Amino acid sequence: MKALLLDAEWNPRSEYDLTDSERETQKAHNSAQVWQHPEMNVEDRPRPEPEDDEVLIEVAYAGVCGSDCSMIQTDEEGYMHYSAYTQFPNVTGHEFSGRIAETGDDANLFEPGERVTSEVVDYCGRCQQCRRGFHGHCENFEQVGFTIPGAFAEYVTVPEKIVWSVESLANAYEDEDELLRAAATIEPSTITYHGIFVRSEGVLPGDHHVYHGTGPIGLTGMNLSRAAGAGKVIGFDPSPERRSIAADLGFDHVYDPTEQDPVEVIDKVTDGRGADVHLETAGAVTETYPVIQETLAEEANVVHVSNASSAPNLATRKYQGSSAQLYGTEGHTGQQIYPRVIRLMSAGRLDNTSIITSTYSLSNADKAIEQAAKRVDGKVLIEI
Amino acid sequence: MKALLLDAEWNPRSEYDLTDSERETQKAHNSAQVWQHPEMNVEDRPRPEPEDDEVLIEVAYAGVCGSDCSMIQTDEEGYMHYSAYTQFPNVTGHEFSGRIAETGDDANLFEPGERVTSEVVDYCGRCQQCRRGFHGHCENFEQVGFTIPGAFAEYVTVPEKIVWSVESLANAYEDEDELLRAAATIEPSTITYHGIFVRSEGVLPGDHHVYHGTGPIGLTGMNLSRAAGAGKVIGFDPSPERRSIAADLGFDHVYDPTEQDPVEVIDKVTDGRGADVHLETAGAVTETYPVIQETLAEEANVVHVSNASSAPNLATRKYQGSSAQLYGTEGHTGQQIYPRVIRLMSAGRLDNTSIITSTYSLSNADKAIEQAAKRVDGKVLIEI
Repeated sequence: MKALLLDAEWNPRSEYDLTDSERETQKAHNSAQVWQHPEMNVEDRPRPEPEDDEVLIEVAYAGVCGSDCSMIQTDEEGYMHYSAYTQFPNVTGHEFSGRIAETGDDANLFEPGERVTSEVVDYCGRCQQCRRGFHGHCENFEQVGFTIPGAFAEYVTVPEKIVWSVESLANAYEDEDELLRAAATIEPSTITYHGIFVRSEGVLPGDHHVYHGTGPIGLTGMNLSRAAGAGKVIGFDPSPERRSIAADLGFDHVYDPTEQDPVEVIDKVTDGRGADVHLETAGAVTETYPVIQETLAEEANVVHVSNASSAPNLATRKYQGSSAQLYGTEGHTGQQIYPRVIRLMSAGRLDNTSIITSTYSLSNADKAIEQAAKRVDGKVLIEI
Repeated sequence: MKALLLDAEWNPRSEYDLTDSERETQKAHNSAQVWQHPEMNVEDRPRPEPEDDEVLIEVAYAGVCGSDCSMIQTDEEGYMHYSAYTQFPNVTGHEFSGRIAETGDDANLFEPGERVTSEVVDYCGRCQQCRRGFHGHCENFEQVGFTIPGAFAEYVTVPEKIVWSVESLANAYEDEDELLRAAATIEPSTITYHGIFVRSEGVLPGDHHVYHGTGPIGLTGMNLSRAAGAGKVIGFDPSPERRSIAADLGFDHVYDPTEQDPVEVIDKVTDGRGADVHLETAGAVTETYPVIQETLAEEANVVHVSNASSAPNLATRKYQGSSAQLYGTEGHTGQQIYPRVIRLMSAGRLDNTSIITSTYSLSNADKAIEQAAKRVDGKVLIEI
């Protein structure tokens, strides 16, 4: 089968202390310290076989995530930007839709042909984190498209326990192709869903939400916030292309933070009350946090979503004065997030298809990632 | 009556823009920008009369808070350290116990002679914050001992709606004097109660709590954490006197952070799991946050209690990687916090009397505050 393979050189930086696990497994917990000179190529790979508890999925569409971009972006010494858990060579890609092609001997939740999507974290179910139902922090986790083969390929195997049927999307999408495109955008919507509704406490309908950064995560998040009953949904992004996508989605309050003072804008749009929910979806924390901390509504929830490399100053007095709280959030595993996002889509309340701005063939998957890395698109899809 | 009066000069710093409200009322929202050359004197004042909705309390004991100290401490230009809401001249003091001396014409919740304590915030009950039940953030609030006369005096008047009976403490304290001393420590315990149990979500019995700073707030907090079923309660303080008070209270895990690496200590004491609840009760945020952020248990709650002047760096990746959250917390108003702290004391589960290390007469109230400012005591009380 055809697949996009990413490879890199295992050259731990001289000043970096490998963990025991990294030394033994050659899986990097801090990729930016270890992997040099990443390269991607579309090539032929053996079609995988499902283990007993797995299903084989024939991939239809796979979206490009910021992490896919940061795995090929490097610093001046050639080390990749991406800083989390990876092993190479590997097939990347983790936001996808497809059809069940085969089921393992013990897998009985899905029928061949069924349209599905999948979570990303394969959890062990036995460690301390799994025992508390906190699968996303499994101590023995693997990640589809990061440490085990992903979806920029004709086929991918995943454990059936993290697969979800998207057959119900037929209620909202008559067209088969449109259904599968929409289903490939479920994963990014689950990221902000997790931050706003699972991690945060007490987010209420009518709350004003501000997205600091309207890339694919910000845009799918704004869609979700609107579907979930936000009062006003405000977005900031320096990219005119991305602001224009947001405007096309019907969002009235989208601004260039380099042209208009976001503190003044938020103050005006919220009638001086500030934002109830702030989402950091830009990674530009030294710019966004000073704004966030000046525009906290009482009991505001600050939801830190982005993978930021720098550390902003924390204005503790502001969090005290507003009884505000800040949540670190990552991923989407467990807590029945996927089925709820699927319900919103199936009910026609959440439609991300207008966010898709480019579609590439698998043969051009490398070009898709290069395009997404320019940070002007909404969602870039690869059609398999 | 005798009272400790604090006065200061209204000299707004040249670079500070007074708010309209500050200009009109000569009440400072940012005291550190406005009040210069504070001075305190014990002097004779007219005994106050209760308004219709108020009670007159004959004060028995009043504790010295860090804020009382920071109202007399100044920078090199003579401006006070305290940065929140004040008006001077004023009688300070807001942690107190006493007996009802008189009741206003419409006040009928208490009987003369009844032993009581009081919350600090007099809220309006009409503004947007009060309408949501968020009285501590009342837009028209006054504060006993800050903007209206406080308890370093023979008598104080307060609205009966913020007064609580402490008669039930007789279950735990046979001695009248001991009861009134204990009752004067209710207020500091409500500060951490608010942070741990009202602001934070999901703090569970058995959680490990770490106090970064074991001054009066830290010590009363550690007592509360133990009473509320914490697993291990760990404290850090550079003061040998304060560590010794904690040891005398029976806390086994109290360390000098300048001698022992707190990250290693927490790692060891929690068997590598980190702290479930971190309380910043030191104000030394540039020292404490690097420790906190390295020792977050999964879903850890970081409770920011102290009035810190500097802004620590926020390691967003750490909060994401541990699904941790950070709460700004201040005060104690509403949410039935006082009656619950009183219940714990009445049941004999929370006893702060051993934290009281010095007691001064009202004539020496100024000396009591000077002593507390040395930051070596537990709680300093003034006996009225």
